[in-house]
Amino acid sequence: MANRLVLILLLVTPLAAQNQTEIRFRSLPDQVRMRQYMERLAARPHHIGSEYDRDNAEWILARFKEWGWDAKIETFHVLFPTPKERIVELIAPVKFTAKLLEPAIANDPSSTQQSEQLPSYNAYSADGDVTAPLVYVNYGIPADYEKLESLGISVKGCIVIARYGASWRGIKPKLAAEKGAVGCIIYSDPRDDGYYQGIVYPDGPYRNENGVQRGSVMDMPLRAGDPLTPFIGATKDAKRVTKEQSGLLTKIPVLPVSYSDAQPLLSALEGPVAPDNWRGALGITYRVGPGPAKVHLKLAFNWDVIPIHDVIATMRGREFPDEWIIRGNHHDAWVNGAEDPTSGMVALLEEARSIGTLVKEGWKPKRTLVYCAWDGEEQGLLGSTEWAEAHADELKAKAVLYINTDSNGRGFFGAAGSHTLEPFINGVAKDITDPETGLSAWKRVQLRRISEARTAEERSEVRSSENLKIGALGSGSDYTVFLQHLGVSALNLGYGGEDGGGIYHSIYDDVRWYTTFSDTNMAYGCALAQTAGTAVLRIADAEVLPYDFRSFASTVGTYVDELKKLLKSMQDEIRERNKQLDEGVYAAIADPREVSVAPKREDVPPHVNFAPLENAVDELKAMSEAFHKALDAAKKEGSLNATKRTELNRMMRMAERDLTHPSGLPRRPWFRHLVYAPGFYTGYGVKTLPGVREAIEQKDWKEAEAEIARAAGVLEKLAGQLEIAGNNVK
Amino acid sequence: MANRLVLILLLVTPLAAQNQTEIRFRSLPDQVRMRQYMERLAARPHHIGSEYDRDNAEWILARFKEWGWDAKIETFHVLFPTPKERIVELIAPVKFTAKLLEPAIANDPSSTQQSEQLPSYNAYSADGDVTAPLVYVNYGIPADYEKLESLGISVKGCIVIARYGASWRGIKPKLAAEKGAVGCIIYSDPRDDGYYQGIVYPDGPYRNENGVQRGSVMDMPLRAGDPLTPFIGATKDAKRVTKEQSGLLTKIPVLPVSYSDAQPLLSALEGPVAPDNWRGALGITYRVGPGPAKVHLKLAFNWDVIPIHDVIATMRGREFPDEWIIRGNHHDAWVNGAEDPTSGMVALLEEARSIGTLVKEGWKPKRTLVYCAWDGEEQGLLGSTEWAEAHADELKAKAVLYINTDSNGRGFFGAAGSHTLEPFINGVAKDITDPETGLSAWKRVQLRRISEARTAEERSEVRSSENLKIGALGSGSDYTVFLQHLGVSALNLGYGGEDGGGIYHSIYDDVRWYTTFSDTNMAYGCALAQTAGTAVLRIADAEVLPYDFRSFASTVGTYVDELKKLLKSMQDEIRERNKQLDEGVYAAIADPREVSVAPKREDVPPHVNFAPLENAVDELKAMSEAFHKALDAAKKEGSLNATKRTELNRMMRMAERDLTHPSGLPRRPWFRHLVYAPGFYTGYGVKTLPGVREAIEQKDWKEAEAEIARAAGVLEKLAGQLEIAGNNVK
Repeated sequence: MANRLVLILLLVTPLAAQNQTEIRFRSLPDQVRMRQYMERLAARPHHIGSEYDRDNAEWILARFKEWGWDAKIETFHVLFPTPKERIVELIAPVKFTAKLLEPAIANDPSSTQQSEQLPSYNAYSADGDVTAPLVYVNYGIPADYEKLESLGISVKGCIVIARYGASWRGIKPKLAAEKGAVGCIIYSDPRDDGYYQGIVYPDGPYRNENGVQRGSVMDMPLRAGDPLTPFIGATKDAKRVTKEQSGLLTKIPVLPVSYSDAQPLLSALEGPVAPDNWRGALGITYRVGPGPAKVHLKLAFNWDVIPIHDVIATMRGREFPDEWIIRGNHHDAWVNGAEDPTSGMVALLEEARSIGTLVKEGWKPKRTLVYCAWDGEEQGLLGSTEWAEAHADELKAKAVLYINTDSNGRGFFGAAGSHTLEPFINGVAKDITDPETGLSAWKRVQLRRISEARTAEERSEVRSSENLKIGALGSGSDYTVFLQHLGVSALNLGYGGEDGGGIYHSIYDDVRWYTTFSDTNMAYGCALAQTAGTAVLRIADAEVLPYDFRSFASTVGTYVDELKKLLKSMQDEIRERNKQLDEGVYAAIADPREVSVAPKREDVPPHVNFAPLENAVDELKAMSEAFHKALDAAKKEGSLNATKRTELNRMMRMAERDLTHPSGLPRRPWFRHLVYAPGFYTGYGVKTLPGVREAIEQKDWKEAEAEIARAAGVLEKLAGQLEIAGNNVK
Repeated sequence: MANRLVLILLLVTPLAAQNQTEIRFRSLPDQVRMRQYMERLAARPHHIGSEYDRDNAEWILARFKEWGWDAKIETFHVLFPTPKERIVELIAPVKFTAKLLEPAIANDPSSTQQSEQLPSYNAYSADGDVTAPLVYVNYGIPADYEKLESLGISVKGCIVIARYGASWRGIKPKLAAEKGAVGCIIYSDPRDDGYYQGIVYPDGPYRNENGVQRGSVMDMPLRAGDPLTPFIGATKDAKRVTKEQSGLLTKIPVLPVSYSDAQPLLSALEGPVAPDNWRGALGITYRVGPGPAKVHLKLAFNWDVIPIHDVIATMRGREFPDEWIIRGNHHDAWVNGAEDPTSGMVALLEEARSIGTLVKEGWKPKRTLVYCAWDGEEQGLLGSTEWAEAHADELKAKAVLYINTDSNGRGFFGAAGSHTLEPFINGVAKDITDPETGLSAWKRVQLRRISEARTAEERSEVRSSENLKIGALGSGSDYTVFLQHLGVSALNLGYGGEDGGGIYHSIYDDVRWYTTFSDTNMAYGCALAQTAGTAVLRIADAEVLPYDFRSFASTVGTYVDELKKLLKSMQDEIRERNKQLDEGVYAAIADPREVSVAPKREDVPPHVNFAPLENAVDELKAMSEAFHKALDAAKKEGSLNATKRTELNRMMRMAERDLTHPSGLPRRPWFRHLVYAPGFYTGYGVKTLPGVREAIEQKDWKEAEAEIARAAGVLEKLAGQLEIAGNNVK
């Protein structure tokens, strides 16, 4: 019965909600124009500090103005290291000097712009000059060091070589340094990113033997933005800390290399054969070391402070000018960056042009639209973070939500973000047509999830739910400062999943690659503009903001269940391991011809009091239900007058702020959201209820209970707001 | 309470059961002698038909005689093809001729004996001369052809290249021919068998780029033994069928190659990138084809009938000379064969010498011991099968059990076979000391199983069970004719699991390899002699044969459960797939840039009447319990007189025969056991309750019900025998 009702609503609601403005809007984005924008923006290397980066900012500014937006460039001044010297040499048992060079390819015109390309390196690596035995550490994540310990191998005093993948790259040198390594080399293994995955560039889309993944290694799980201006905008005269005080730079030198440069190093290792899941796709026996391979790693950087250029375009709201819908994508790249970030940027531009057209045709948004083209995302979300820090008070008062995009591709719609917006973004995706299948973008994803579900229950849930679950946000693009520092609801949107690729952060991420191997005709660029733009318009003109606290409450409930399971499985695992130590299992299965170290006996984790969190979730669920019941009734009765609506929308706008805490997470006060954060040892990957979860993972039981209380506190605060709001709308 | 009782029995029984003979026996096997035997037997290539194979047989014969056994050579005459011509050439898009050669290695003396080595080939391949486009078919098993279908690729008229692994090798050309291929190349991928696994020979134990796995491709799941003399011993004058009539030869030419010979062929393929789990460890992008690689494969063989030499040694039983304990290992190899088969053969020889010593010291077995050194195992279990077929009537009347060994290594004890012998062989393993840990061989395996268990329940079962479960036997060594053709209970024993290797069926399986990288000091050879010999002595001297029908009944019960689950999961899968076809899942997720074929709608499998089998299992369980209860009571009361014991032991000896059916399995009458058989499309891998299981897998519901009735019939027959025996012992 309930299902039939839902079905009727689905048939009726879209026609009501999709007003003529939205339909007109979605007819405007133009694939040909997007291709032209891409050809312009990605024509030359445009990293921060480059001539063309600034030129692009001015060109974007001119476009916004041309389309009727009130636009300006806001400039910040940030620490930006560039390499002075880069040496990686194998000095024993044989000599080899790494090329550290991505060669031009004949039929790829922009690959030849070598004088303008940034060399391959990891930004915010320490300077250093070290010579030491090499150790292969797989992905260089915590589990890998546990495995090394079981093999009796220490990286102390060694240079580690880690493959890209399984974590944000900055974690690799951070953890290596914590374990006593003196240097770190990161390479792209063809197993994860190269010929194993598919045909390599230029014949195919995958990483060739010379491709290098550049990238920042700033300690972003600690804080994003310019290292020298924590918590404040990096204006020209801002008070700065030293780079040493910033705490964001790596402790040891780190450099990325291609797999052709890595192979001689890895081939020179002896010691134990690497565990099965450590082996990549190079045609060698992967071994761990240490040595006899001995490596000389020398890195020196220019530590310049340079200007970066955010382009900020505003379309003032006619009814609620102080309620801002913010929409952003970065414009800077590591090199030419046709995919990253231009494929997302061209969608944002077409949205802006289309909205400009609507305005010329007489429409005006109720709320203010703020369209942003960020600079300096690649180095550490610099442009978005500095702008948001500079305008923090205004944003806390005015921001309704932030919608982010970045690289885009062909395939399936994807969304992640605040779970209060889960039903909203599901509703948007139901109104977008997938270019390849003619289905709605939503339906295509639902059918894919049916095909990928692992159990009959999962399938049944996907089939019966009105809303597809969205993921939580960790870090990795410009939503971070909004969601996790300021407590502004955020969504990150994109399409992809059909085309592989291996040009990420290399010189080969260019127009030829994108238009040969990805969304070649910008059909999905257009779908992205339609999706993000529809979301912007729908929320900008909403009578009542489309937040749904029931979906948030039930999602947080699943996080609490996860934490309880996590603790339980840690208890079970340690109890079982201790038992096996008693039984002599490790001694019995050890091969006497190989070094192996049995795990240590550990205390079984105590029971932790989850009750405050469970009570808070129950309360939040109850208050959410009551609030939405009252709201639905008021809507039905038409009893929501303007005053009530204003107060209601204010509460909704502020709801995400209620989930933050002014003192932030333990040891990382910049991250203030107590429900979503990037993991301290994962980097991009989200940790939900991060204070509690990481305390449990780190076996700090006192902190776990303290964080349970704090997380319960913010949930109760939101529940309290919902209780008041529910009474107000009655 | 039950557990405490068991514990007391464990403390008391061993001292009673391990009589002085066994203890004395286990002190006799000598590692130095084993090394000497290996150096003698594996000194030169000794495949069937070779000078040294015959010489080895005579040397073994002389040893048995020297040790006091009544020994003789029995000669059979078998079809044995050897290559006249072998050509594998890539003729487009570039030219390449495969070397088909394993080069000598300087510091490996026996690798230089090239004039005596058999070239690398697959015995019983068809002659042929074909030129066709190449297709990569992964392992070439049924699931791989389903995947090819989904990619819209047919192998009709093509030559397939398959990697070794995931099935018995003979399945690959058999299935390829069924799918319309005209030729088949099999290669060793370094992912499964080469540098990915570890350091390659001669620096390490793994397969180097030139190593080739020889091997038979006779259709052994249909029948084992000499192709020309089905069902009868291949005596000189036996009536022979033609090789075409035999039905055991491949329909298409097939040849094994090394990975250095395979790489140019695979590199020349285009077409879709191979699915993720099809990709090996060569430094290339694996693609499927067909073509543009075009291959010329030409093979011609000498189809000779040659003599083979089984050595049969007998130690006559003093009380029950017509009850035979048979023990075997083959002596022939593909080349030098230090591991396969010599490492097992030397254990058998030391058992024979040690038993000879016991006899010289005055002991005599109650039952007759028959020690066998088989010839021609490698080509198709020729020596064991022809001997057993020639002596079928005598064996059916006299054989108590057959204990097989083959290649042996360092590490963990392993046993598989008749589940009526599960408690017996567990008991033996409890009395053997593991050389590396000083634990019992049984305890070491138990602790390993604890460490490998995937669930708490599995762990708890391993911890609490008095008996570790043993596997069922498929095929792959000389137990086949005994267990599956004649219905003689069988066990296959060995040690291993600590050392990897990659010299299987190559010229590098020699004394240098074995004594450098495997059981270098023959400690586990010695443990194997102690284990198999203890089993032989214990059963030879048993008052009452140590069969336990409860363990068999409960194991068969689990097979029936598996079959019900198999059918249920097929029903669920097909129902779900049809639903997804209705929903449009396949169309929605298909990438329009790639060819993909949606699966076909299929009828949901009907419910099948398992009741006859379930009733038979219940009856068997009940009769087993009653029988063992009566037997235990009779033992306790001492009421088992000689007549009763004789009748009881006769019943037990015949019990496995009761599980056979004279007309055998559908379409393969030689395989008569209705509980254990090699899979028709897996080859080595066992299919339990094979008639029923394969009918379900092939979706032949009528046959499934008929086979349920037949399987139920043999179980009921055994239950009936147990009922009579249970009454008799009272």
